[in-house]
Amino acid sequence: MSDHWYGTAAAVVTLTFDVDAESPILAQGRGYARHATTMSHQAYGPDVGLPRILAMLDELGVPATFFVPGWVAEQRPGLAASIADRGHEVAHHSYSHRPPTSMTPEEERADFERGLAVFDAQGVEITGHRAALWEASWQTAALVAEHGLLYDSSLMGDDRPYRVPTESGDVVELPVHWSLDDWEQYAFLPAPHVGSVIESPAKALELWRAELDGMRHYRCLFNLCVHPFLSGRPGRALALRRLVEYALECGDVRFARCREVAQAAAADRSLPVRPPRPPAVDPGIYPG
Amino acid sequence: MSDHWYGTAAAVVTLTFDVDAESPILAQGRGYARHATTMSHQAYGPDVGLPRILAMLDELGVPATFFVPGWVAEQRPGLAASIADRGHEVAHHSYSHRPPTSMTPEEERADFERGLAVFDAQGVEITGHRAALWEASWQTAALVAEHGLLYDSSLMGDDRPYRVPTESGDVVELPVHWSLDDWEQYAFLPAPHVGSVIESPAKALELWRAELDGMRHYRCLFNLCVHPFLSGRPGRALALRRLVEYALECGDVRFARCREVAQAAAADRSLPVRPPRPPAVDPGIYPG
Amino acid sequence: MSDHWYGTAAAVVTLTFDVDAESPILAQGRGYARHATTMSHQAYGPDVGLPRILAMLDELGVPATFFVPGWVAEQRPGLAASIADRGHEVAHHSYSHRPPTSMTPEEERADFERGLAVFDAQGVEITGHRAALWEASWQTAALVAEHGLLYDSSLMGDDRPYRVPTESGDVVELPVHWSLDDWEQYAFLPAPHVGSVIESPAKALELWRAELDGMRHYRCLFNLCVHPFLSGRPGRALALRRLVEYALECGDVRFARCREVAQAAAADRSLPVRPPRPPAVDPGIYPG
Amino acid sequence: MSDHWYGTAAAVVTLTFDVDAESPILAQGRGYARHATTMSHQAYGPDVGLPRILAMLDELGVPATFFVPGWVAEQRPGLAASIADRGHEVAHHSYSHRPPTSMTPEEERADFERGLAVFDAQGVEITGHRAALWEASWQTAALVAEHGLLYDSSLMGDDRPYRVPTESGDVVELPVHWSLDDWEQYAFLPAPHVGSVIESPAKALELWRAELDGMRHYRCLFNLCVHPFLSGRPGRALALRRLVEYALECGDVRFARCREVAQAAAADRSLPVRPPRPPAVDPGIYPG
Repeated sequence: MSDHWYGTAAAVVTLTFDVDAESPILAQGRGYARHATTMSHQAYGPDVGLPRILAMLDELGVPATFFVPGWVAEQRPGLAASIADRGHEVAHHSYSHRPPTSMTPEEERADFERGLAVFDAQGVEITGHRAALWEASWQTAALVAEHGLLYDSSLMGDDRPYRVPTESGDVVELPVHWSLDDWEQYAFLPAPHVGSVIESPAKALELWRAELDGMRHYRCLFNLCVHPFLSGRPGRALALRRLVEYALECGDVRFARCREVAQAAAADRSLPVRPPRPPAVDPGIYPG
Repeated sequence: MSDHWYGTAAAVVTLTFDVDAESPILAQGRGYARHATTMSHQAYGPDVGLPRILAMLDELGVPATFFVPGWVAEQRPGLAASIADRGHEVAHHSYSHRPPTSMTPEEERADFERGLAVFDAQGVEITGHRAALWEASWQTAALVAEHGLLYDSSLMGDDRPYRVPTESGDVVELPVHWSLDDWEQYAFLPAPHVGSVIESPAKALELWRAELDGMRHYRCLFNLCVHPFLSGRPGRALALRRLVEYALECGDVRFARCREVAQAAAADRSLPVRPPRPPAVDPGIYPG
Repeated sequence: MSDHWYGTAAAVVTLTFDVDAESPILAQGRGYARHATTMSHQAYGPDVGLPRILAMLDELGVPATFFVPGWVAEQRPGLAASIADRGHEVAHHSYSHRPPTSMTPEEERADFERGLAVFDAQGVEITGHRAALWEASWQTAALVAEHGLLYDSSLMGDDRPYRVPTESGDVVELPVHWSLDDWEQYAFLPAPHVGSVIESPAKALELWRAELDGMRHYRCLFNLCVHPFLSGRPGRALALRRLVEYALECGDVRFARCREVAQAAAADRSLPVRPPRPPAVDPGIYPG
Repeated sequence: MSDHWYGTAAAVVTLTFDVDAESPILAQGRGYARHATTMSHQAYGPDVGLPRILAMLDELGVPATFFVPGWVAEQRPGLAASIADRGHEVAHHSYSHRPPTSMTPEEERADFERGLAVFDAQGVEITGHRAALWEASWQTAALVAEHGLLYDSSLMGDDRPYRVPTESGDVVELPVHWSLDDWEQYAFLPAPHVGSVIESPAKALELWRAELDGMRHYRCLFNLCVHPFLSGRPGRALALRRLVEYALECGDVRFARCREVAQAAAADRSLPVRPPRPPAVDPGIYPG
């Protein structure tokens, strides 16, 4: 037996679902609330996609992690609990889905804490965090540590878990990547402008299988991020099912909630350490 | 026999054709009328694509629904009747193809009523509506109900018909989606800028077959939207034919006009209800 | 024997090459002349791609038509003649490659006549014209007729030749389309921004074969437009060769220069007639 | 034996890696240093992708060339030497990764010389150069010659090496092209906006194999440019390995460092000569 985060597996799969509903659209401008079609496009996520995905996970018998903005949990009171009740993990995905890089440090802190407070009030236990739009600031990891959470999942500095030391203690980073996200493959909206090409589910499946095979070769964390309003649609849900079935057939892949991977990684002494340090930039070289 | 909207079918297919001609381009600016090539690109739809599609539907023996802007029906007087005469449904697709989200409520109403008046004057019976660019406002459904129409087909809140209650009565929504539209797969124009990638018909066919298979699995409405100026071209018309042939071979798919699906859905007591309600947005959270 | 433009063929192929060199880039701004890499990217067309394509056409034994801007013919004095000497047709592609829709009628006329004058001075016989960027104005066809040319190849109103009546006489239109152009499949440049995806030659081949098969089904003109700076590259040149070989194997496809198709079409009494007439636009409906 | 640059090979492959790290992002604005996720996305290149690629090249037994901006070599002191120690070539890729076309001639010279000075101080021998973003100016080749370097690899005027005469002597150009770059296939970032589609490794492999086959047919230089932060990811690294294995199986392909190809090309008297000369542009024809 290994005391490494991956145990005896060639690759570990964390299926993660960002339950964003209307929040990423409203974060681009309150005025989009007037667009009935766009709002219905987003509401499809919690209303239609989420139940379908929960049923599918039950059938497949694999655990998952759902990142929920506090605003979404607040607007739909039973949502977070209904996910946790099925045995899945609910994690913190900001309050408003406005990205940290667009806020002052004080605004980021306020948004972070308001999100946590929602889950607290709903009795949902939180151990991890993912920044809105994956646009973390350099203080994000410290906020995660300061509030007693175990892990963050917003950075791209590796394809295996790593340790991020902060002034409030260490955080385990479960890194993400654009290529393991369904947004780049499926998202399309004219207003606000989101995406320009709609790929077929077969292409997304091909891409993700190739990455899973590569990660089995290099012993990585396959941290897939999909959205109920995108991958909850019929043809895409079947492609996601096929991906999970393929991973199960591999025989060397373990499925886990993010929390469990983070716990194993926190106990792994060989984990790489990557301090959250911005590059030193000379204003004489790089213009503002 | 079931009294559900789908009857005994695994999925219902509504083939819908948006006969937009020049209108979506002119809606982006009157000045494009000076662009002879762009105007010819759009005129191809009613002049070449439409007759080809009508002949193909005859050969295949499947019914369809044609959404026509009032302005187009006015500019080409015989067009709407020639569609209805072949046994297909003609439906309301605004007057000018300007999207409701770009208009005041009064402008939307005026455009809606001017469109209806054109069909009235031409003796074409209308029972359904689709918003221009699928950009419905929150009052769109109420306008549909107020004018005695049975259904709308502009929202994305489900992949099965649902009921939209309004102050003027209920409307059946036959939801659409970007992934079941040929615009995202084929449209390309430099001025105005429309699309940036031209997919092969084989890719569109793969995408739509995957979605149809998913919808057969989940018992949905495969509400395909194609445009004569795009899918009327030779290679794409053959791909569309292959899609229809595939659906016919499935044996568990029913083809219907939108009107018939809406009638069956209106009589289905188990239909989900989704009120047309904008999300409550706090200006302190989401900037304007 | 038929007296139709297509004779006994199921489809007619006109291979056309737009030998643009630096002109479309300079038309976007004189300043790009300072970009050495971008200029070399364009010069590759006449310097490397063109000789490769001419050799390939010799090997395959098929005729083609080369649309050359007058400015390009002027900058590279022997170029037009070297094409004509191989038995191919040279046609008029504006002087500067600025699109007619960006010019006043006087500017368009001046540019048109300056282009013709270059070919006149070089002793190259011209019988047809293609507007820069395929952005014809409503007077373009009349300019073609007035100067005694037989055909234009810039509009998209059909997928078969058609007759365009003008005050100076009739013009035969050999219509083009974005899907039969290699620009949308292959072009990529960051400055000026051109294209965002580079497709594989296998995808372009799949797309064009699908369109050719559709055109054989519907008896159309497969009027392919490729660019030596794009399709002259090694992998793409082989894909083009495979397309030609496929068309030859079909047994029902005829290859011809544009001039010959235009002559046959001019003599075909059943040719559709499409007057060059802008749509009537009410400023009260469509904003400026 | 041939005295041509390609010797007895049908095609020569130069695997080149641009080790850009954070520099291309900072060149678009110093403010991006605040974006922790974006910076981690770039740091992945030298931290994770580079060691993986170096190990893979060892296993495959093929040599490569690494283009490194001086700023990157300075920020990570051991990096350039660790590449050279494995038997690969390190080459000059500007100091700051700001493109020459965005600088004055004096700024370009200062950036060029500052980059060279870094490698000089680190004892890394440099014989070639590649302009940042492949946006060379017309003086770039002269700077290369003046500083005693043998070759440049930034232009696109051919798909075989060519000679660029300058006032400071001749330079061998090893031309690049957008289609042989992994940026166009894989790069995606929302801020700064980079790319809009993420292709599957299978598609990139298909594209590059097609181009390699074309280059074997036409006897060209397959000058592939990939980035550790992109192609160092697991699934893409396996696709790159498969490409190399395919090239090795061909039996007629030679792998070489850029330096060796440049030396052979410099000695090849039949090499084409392409003077670095901007096109003559009349301000009356092309607006500013």
